[in-house]
Amino acid sequence: MSLKVVVIGGGSSYTPEIIEGLITRYDQIPVREIVLVDIEAGAKKVAIIEALSRRMIENSGYPIHVHSSFDLRASLEGANFVTTQIRVGGLEAREKDERIPLKHGLIGQETNGAGGVFKAFRTIPVLLEIAQAIHDICPQAWMINFTNPAGIVTEALLHHSPHKKVVGVCNIPFNMRTGIAEMFSCPVEQVEIEFIGMNHFVFGKRVFIHGEDRTTEALAKLTEDKVDYSPANIVSLGWSKAFVTALQLLPNPYHLYYFQTEEVLKKDLDAFRNNGTRAEIVKQVEDSLFLTYQNPSLSEKPKELEQRGGAYYSEAACNLMESLYTNKQDIQTVNTLNNGSIRDLPDDAVVEINAVITKDGPRPLAIGKIPPHIKGLIGHMKTFEQLVIKAALSGDYYDAYNALIMNPLVADEKKAKIVLDELLDAHKEHLPQFYRKGAVI
Amino acid sequence: MSLKVVVIGGGSSYTPEIIEGLITRYDQIPVREIVLVDIEAGAKKVAIIEALSRRMIENSGYPIHVHSSFDLRASLEGANFVTTQIRVGGLEAREKDERIPLKHGLIGQETNGAGGVFKAFRTIPVLLEIAQAIHDICPQAWMINFTNPAGIVTEALLHHSPHKKVVGVCNIPFNMRTGIAEMFSCPVEQVEIEFIGMNHFVFGKRVFIHGEDRTTEALAKLTEDKVDYSPANIVSLGWSKAFVTALQLLPNPYHLYYFQTEEVLKKDLDAFRNNGTRAEIVKQVEDSLFLTYQNPSLSEKPKELEQRGGAYYSEAACNLMESLYTNKQDIQTVNTLNNGSIRDLPDDAVVEINAVITKDGPRPLAIGKIPPHIKGLIGHMKTFEQLVIKAALSGDYYDAYNALIMNPLVADEKKAKIVLDELLDAHKEHLPQFYRKGAVI
Amino acid sequence: MSLKVVVIGGGSSYTPEIIEGLITRYDQIPVREIVLVDIEAGAKKVAIIEALSRRMIENSGYPIHVHSSFDLRASLEGANFVTTQIRVGGLEAREKDERIPLKHGLIGQETNGAGGVFKAFRTIPVLLEIAQAIHDICPQAWMINFTNPAGIVTEALLHHSPHKKVVGVCNIPFNMRTGIAEMFSCPVEQVEIEFIGMNHFVFGKRVFIHGEDRTTEALAKLTEDKVDYSPANIVSLGWSKAFVTALQLLPNPYHLYYFQTEEVLKKDLDAFRNNGTRAEIVKQVEDSLFLTYQNPSLSEKPKELEQRGGAYYSEAACNLMESLYTNKQDIQTVNTLNNGSIRDLPDDAVVEINAVITKDGPRPLAIGKIPPHIKGLIGHMKTFEQLVIKAALSGDYYDAYNALIMNPLVADEKKAKIVLDELLDAHKEHLPQFYRKGAVI
Amino acid sequence: MSLKVVVIGGGSSYTPEIIEGLITRYDQIPVREIVLVDIEAGAKKVAIIEALSRRMIENSGYPIHVHSSFDLRASLEGANFVTTQIRVGGLEAREKDERIPLKHGLIGQETNGAGGVFKAFRTIPVLLEIAQAIHDICPQAWMINFTNPAGIVTEALLHHSPHKKVVGVCNIPFNMRTGIAEMFSCPVEQVEIEFIGMNHFVFGKRVFIHGEDRTTEALAKLTEDKVDYSPANIVSLGWSKAFVTALQLLPNPYHLYYFQTEEVLKKDLDAFRNNGTRAEIVKQVEDSLFLTYQNPSLSEKPKELEQRGGAYYSEAACNLMESLYTNKQDIQTVNTLNNGSIRDLPDDAVVEINAVITKDGPRPLAIGKIPPHIKGLIGHMKTFEQLVIKAALSGDYYDAYNALIMNPLVADEKKAKIVLDELLDAHKEHLPQFYRKGAVI
Repeated sequence: MSLKVVVIGGGSSYTPEIIEGLITRYDQIPVREIVLVDIEAGAKKVAIIEALSRRMIENSGYPIHVHSSFDLRASLEGANFVTTQIRVGGLEAREKDERIPLKHGLIGQETNGAGGVFKAFRTIPVLLEIAQAIHDICPQAWMINFTNPAGIVTEALLHHSPHKKVVGVCNIPFNMRTGIAEMFSCPVEQVEIEFIGMNHFVFGKRVFIHGEDRTTEALAKLTEDKVDYSPANIVSLGWSKAFVTALQLLPNPYHLYYFQTEEVLKKDLDAFRNNGTRAEIVKQVEDSLFLTYQNPSLSEKPKELEQRGGAYYSEAACNLMESLYTNKQDIQTVNTLNNGSIRDLPDDAVVEINAVITKDGPRPLAIGKIPPHIKGLIGHMKTFEQLVIKAALSGDYYDAYNALIMNPLVADEKKAKIVLDELLDAHKEHLPQFYRKGAVI
Repeated sequence: MSLKVVVIGGGSSYTPEIIEGLITRYDQIPVREIVLVDIEAGAKKVAIIEALSRRMIENSGYPIHVHSSFDLRASLEGANFVTTQIRVGGLEAREKDERIPLKHGLIGQETNGAGGVFKAFRTIPVLLEIAQAIHDICPQAWMINFTNPAGIVTEALLHHSPHKKVVGVCNIPFNMRTGIAEMFSCPVEQVEIEFIGMNHFVFGKRVFIHGEDRTTEALAKLTEDKVDYSPANIVSLGWSKAFVTALQLLPNPYHLYYFQTEEVLKKDLDAFRNNGTRAEIVKQVEDSLFLTYQNPSLSEKPKELEQRGGAYYSEAACNLMESLYTNKQDIQTVNTLNNGSIRDLPDDAVVEINAVITKDGPRPLAIGKIPPHIKGLIGHMKTFEQLVIKAALSGDYYDAYNALIMNPLVADEKKAKIVLDELLDAHKEHLPQFYRKGAVI
Repeated sequence: MSLKVVVIGGGSSYTPEIIEGLITRYDQIPVREIVLVDIEAGAKKVAIIEALSRRMIENSGYPIHVHSSFDLRASLEGANFVTTQIRVGGLEAREKDERIPLKHGLIGQETNGAGGVFKAFRTIPVLLEIAQAIHDICPQAWMINFTNPAGIVTEALLHHSPHKKVVGVCNIPFNMRTGIAEMFSCPVEQVEIEFIGMNHFVFGKRVFIHGEDRTTEALAKLTEDKVDYSPANIVSLGWSKAFVTALQLLPNPYHLYYFQTEEVLKKDLDAFRNNGTRAEIVKQVEDSLFLTYQNPSLSEKPKELEQRGGAYYSEAACNLMESLYTNKQDIQTVNTLNNGSIRDLPDDAVVEINAVITKDGPRPLAIGKIPPHIKGLIGHMKTFEQLVIKAALSGDYYDAYNALIMNPLVADEKKAKIVLDELLDAHKEHLPQFYRKGAVI
Repeated sequence: MSLKVVVIGGGSSYTPEIIEGLITRYDQIPVREIVLVDIEAGAKKVAIIEALSRRMIENSGYPIHVHSSFDLRASLEGANFVTTQIRVGGLEAREKDERIPLKHGLIGQETNGAGGVFKAFRTIPVLLEIAQAIHDICPQAWMINFTNPAGIVTEALLHHSPHKKVVGVCNIPFNMRTGIAEMFSCPVEQVEIEFIGMNHFVFGKRVFIHGEDRTTEALAKLTEDKVDYSPANIVSLGWSKAFVTALQLLPNPYHLYYFQTEEVLKKDLDAFRNNGTRAEIVKQVEDSLFLTYQNPSLSEKPKELEQRGGAYYSEAACNLMESLYTNKQDIQTVNTLNNGSIRDLPDDAVVEINAVITKDGPRPLAIGKIPPHIKGLIGHMKTFEQLVIKAALSGDYYDAYNALIMNPLVADEKKAKIVLDELLDAHKEHLPQFYRKGAVI
């Protein structure tokens, strides 16, 4: 059997990683065709990526055919895997998600707080359309989403799209495992972290090294040896001994937005006044990466790519494709329906969890109850996520207000309205659902 | 049958209200003896209250014997009802609960945030001892608690005391009903509000006037007519139309700490710099009240008492005693075990809820699921409450840290530690459980 | 305000009881018009009932207008209450429900076992049509159902009809209270039984006399004094001391089908061979009652009616109407949505439970968890009920098979198929849903 | 590392299978010592087994030391795995479990109905003592239980023993997979059945062949091709098309006791009158097997052993030991704590479920809700199991009555008492907990 992979958002600077991943796994998953799909506005970028991909494949010697397309539906014919890594509104939209909340003294970040809410509002309808196209044209294909906010988006797809073969992936769990492997000087394959929670709000509950429970040591090292496993886009401030000892859990890097809010806000406001937002930094990094990519003598993924916050996203996606195709039954951390694995969350909630990956999809491991001290907070965040999805679909002003007021990084009766109104206006072009006739704006 | 009521904290300025309530209901509940119990440090106050109570009873003509005592266990002999309204550490402690968090830019309030946590830490062990005494000496008696934080304290009692005949009451639900009665120009008896949540975090879900659902009107009036039902200790800033329309719920006055945090903090910081904290204002009010009480020609509850934040607490307590004694089976709002009434909270959680009051105790009405948009937040607050109780009993430093870090008004990794350390030190005298040998401080 | 009551199945021999109930309560609920609705096949009976009703009302002196009609929709205009007491297929169908299972050695009873399943299959579609008519014509009206199997039928209505103002009533809880009142020589008003379970499968968990828990005595009296509270249609065999002592619950009379199956079956088979089935006995009783009713000098409910199994059904219905109309807020036992009152059953399950009756409908009291030893059995019966409803609506052969195989009185792979096939054939006329084109029969 | 395995009940005729299993897996789990522990009454048998085991090991060439012992605690020193396959009271007790219920017209079987209840009563206290010894002497060891009723016994151990490293295994899931492998002509390793339920009451929900869902075909073959996967001790009567089509589940062989009760009872009563009970047949088979075992030229597991009902029990146990030791992370079907894997059962219920086997123990896969049509029945059986455990520990007469009355194969108020009294008397010697001073018998 020969396989076809469709990469939606193929012009992304991360694409070379996915090309490398597919080359590396060729013996396990014999991919013969890769289509890089993008929108016409991204034509220049996708051409650069396509050319680099060709050089990489040629260098590998494998008979893989890569080409690009602006025609989504045509590209999907016969696909076995479809990956989605899109950014509706581009980095310009990200900049607004960051700047507008900051202006009002709130965390401005693209996957958390008010900014994350609006990224979800813009993204969910577009991904639902893509999922519908997959369902119509290649219903056998697995859709592997790594578009952020990955957990919320995956839940929206699994609830509201007829296509049910959808898995969400994030690089954070992989990064945490890598960090722990360094901590214990062991190969990453020997590290299992029992994760509990949702994407960007997940905790590590237990750490196993080759099947042995080493949680206590891992927690001690985290504060005593100041071990850090944050990705490039999050400047870690470290975690205090009191916090980690009391929680008895591994926080994930995004938790700093919730537990170090004031300090992060201060740093971000400083950055905002001086160098600009993260979106602006990313723009520069991207420009530089694309210059590198155009080097005709480059025929492998450049090292610089690993410095980006999203590094290893594609690694996670390729691991997943391999196990789905081969029925490997190994354990990976994915975003999938809870289905009972976490007792205190609804069955139909998407959680970030360890699952056995089979040809039939991920089967999450049951991990029982959430530890009592974080049960409430995780439940609160899940409620928030559900409110975001509801509003993204309804385009209802008050639904959107509820999503914002229930976000712990907003939670202010008056500011909720102010940032809601400004963000709705700023993103008008990409939020048609809120501007339908009769809508309250 | 002749009844005996023991008022623990009998020297409280609120006691005349309870005396009035028992006089008014003499025909339904024939109380023959009232004991005002207090600690010796309160001797002067309790003597004033005792004298006023005697004049009030004499004026009523009923054969009720009132006297004061410093001997708790002796006073409990033969009691039918025991009310508890104590303040461990007095107003001095309250001042610390208010000042220390404020100093670090956090809400300083005696029932919410870090201050509320420490009020619970001081109060729970004392009330558990009282409950044990009741269990030993008058196991038939109902313990009616209105010591704050009333919900948390009642849950601690119901879980950890052998005495199970405990009900918690608060004046907020009564005040809200009174406010709605004014809104609809009807007698308060015709108003039923379906409450959902916990003490000081309760929402009004539906409003019935003589059995008819008038919720929509009530919500509209709340923002359009600017109707207010806040007690005297909370200066309401009003609720915006967006907030009430999105929530479709009646907030309770304490919700402003959670949804108008920044503004309240600003106001409190200003007050803190100018007039001092609420504790200091209350001290002045109390001094003035006790002067009035000493007037030998005063033989009824003075009007000024109704200006205090806690007005109608005793009204609620007396209503409860009447229905418990007569098996009246009317509906009252009490703090009692959930027992399934709210689907999304544990059975053994104490909730503030409408219940039919029988001789056998309150039987809560089932109200099913929490509305989705507040489900997470209410669950989060209940988790917080459970962490407070756990720490109040264990005296464990990290348990206390967890309670603080999970409170939405603290939620800061570093500040949690700072206020924890300062409050533990400031309240050392009243927190023996945290200073046992071997404890981590 | 003047009220209108529509009695569907007005030609029933039980109707005089409802007429009496409305006369007695005239001061509380001023009914001015009663319509007795029936099918034309019942013309003769309804005429007799109408005439008797007129004489009863004339005798009372109240200005109530009673008349009969075959036109359901016309009758519903302006109705405030609609009661439903119908028997689709008449006593002939009942006879089949009893005879066919017995023939194969299974319990033959009209509300339990295979017979009960088929009564539900015939009844549910007809009552759904009636509910739709109520919704269209008098949406303000309460529909009070006492058609059996009352619990299953009420759940079907509350799930599948747009009309949500539906309450189910049964005489069993009332009979049990009456029995307990006799046991304790006290007025029935002072007896409260905490019921748990579903219609015809309900247990008494606690017994209160004027608010005091007297459960232990009640259980002892039940076996020691051989107190019986069975209705006329169930010949009680008594309960053994072992059974009641182990259960620590009051069984209801219908429990004998489940716990004395072999003996009941033996008795029924004997009766079947000698005197005929219960249906045949009832036919004779009915004939005799209608003869009595025709006596022109009779102007009150005859005593004989109280000897029937369904006595006090109408009493329960009239109590309910009074409290719904006056917002009385007393406690009655009704069939309504669980809504959390029983922790271990779904919120949308109809249960037989104590509820406060308000103008807005019944609000069940929360009673928490089912006692562990009957939790499984009650859950099993509820599952069975849900399967019956599913099949009654789908008309699917295998859905019907699942309902039968999961009934503890059938539970036999081969007999399930045999009685299914025979009953489907015997009731063909009244089961159009199973005989639609394409259905598997 | 060298491993030690202790086989409790080492004189069982099944032991050669476990010896064979350990020889076969020597390269994965290097076992150096095997102790066959038994009671002195079994001295003759264990000597035969010990001799045969030695010949088998010698034949294999591996350096494994096998010996027998009557001293449990001494044997446990340094053990890594302890298997338990005991029969308290021997085949004589089994005969009573079978004969006494049959005498009263009830199913007589050693793991179902009244007989199974009493096997649990006899076994649980003995296994709890063994688990305590393991906890004291070799706390690092895994206890692998295959003593029946395996699910109930494992739950009792996991709830009431301090030793938590306990897993229960049964051969039924393995047999079902083997049957399906034959059905699809594929290796058993490629077959995964998603199991749901409890030991001897488990259903196959989905069938996967190399990761592909082939459930529909499997169900069709089961009835159309009359494929059978019953073990030797259950004479299958086959399943009807109606039953399997309606259920859409694979029944397990023991389900015939519940869904073909009358027929099985008839067959067993016939057998009872002619050849005697299953216990008596087993006695003959055992005698013959032990004769074979004594043949000094026999140095491998004889084929006859595979004809017994318990064949492949040891295979399941050896697979488990291998994966626990090597952290293999493959999927096996075990009896372990639910921990959320089945939504509708409590977390602390033992279920028979697919789990990933790690060095840290089994991690069950989450499978979500029980299909609605069997949800009630499975819940009912779990309640029954819990009542059995409660009574086995309390030795309370009424607890035992409740266990019997709630068993669907008893469920008769009077017979429950009769068989309870007779079985208590017959097994008196092995039921000290029911004969303590003050107990009600």
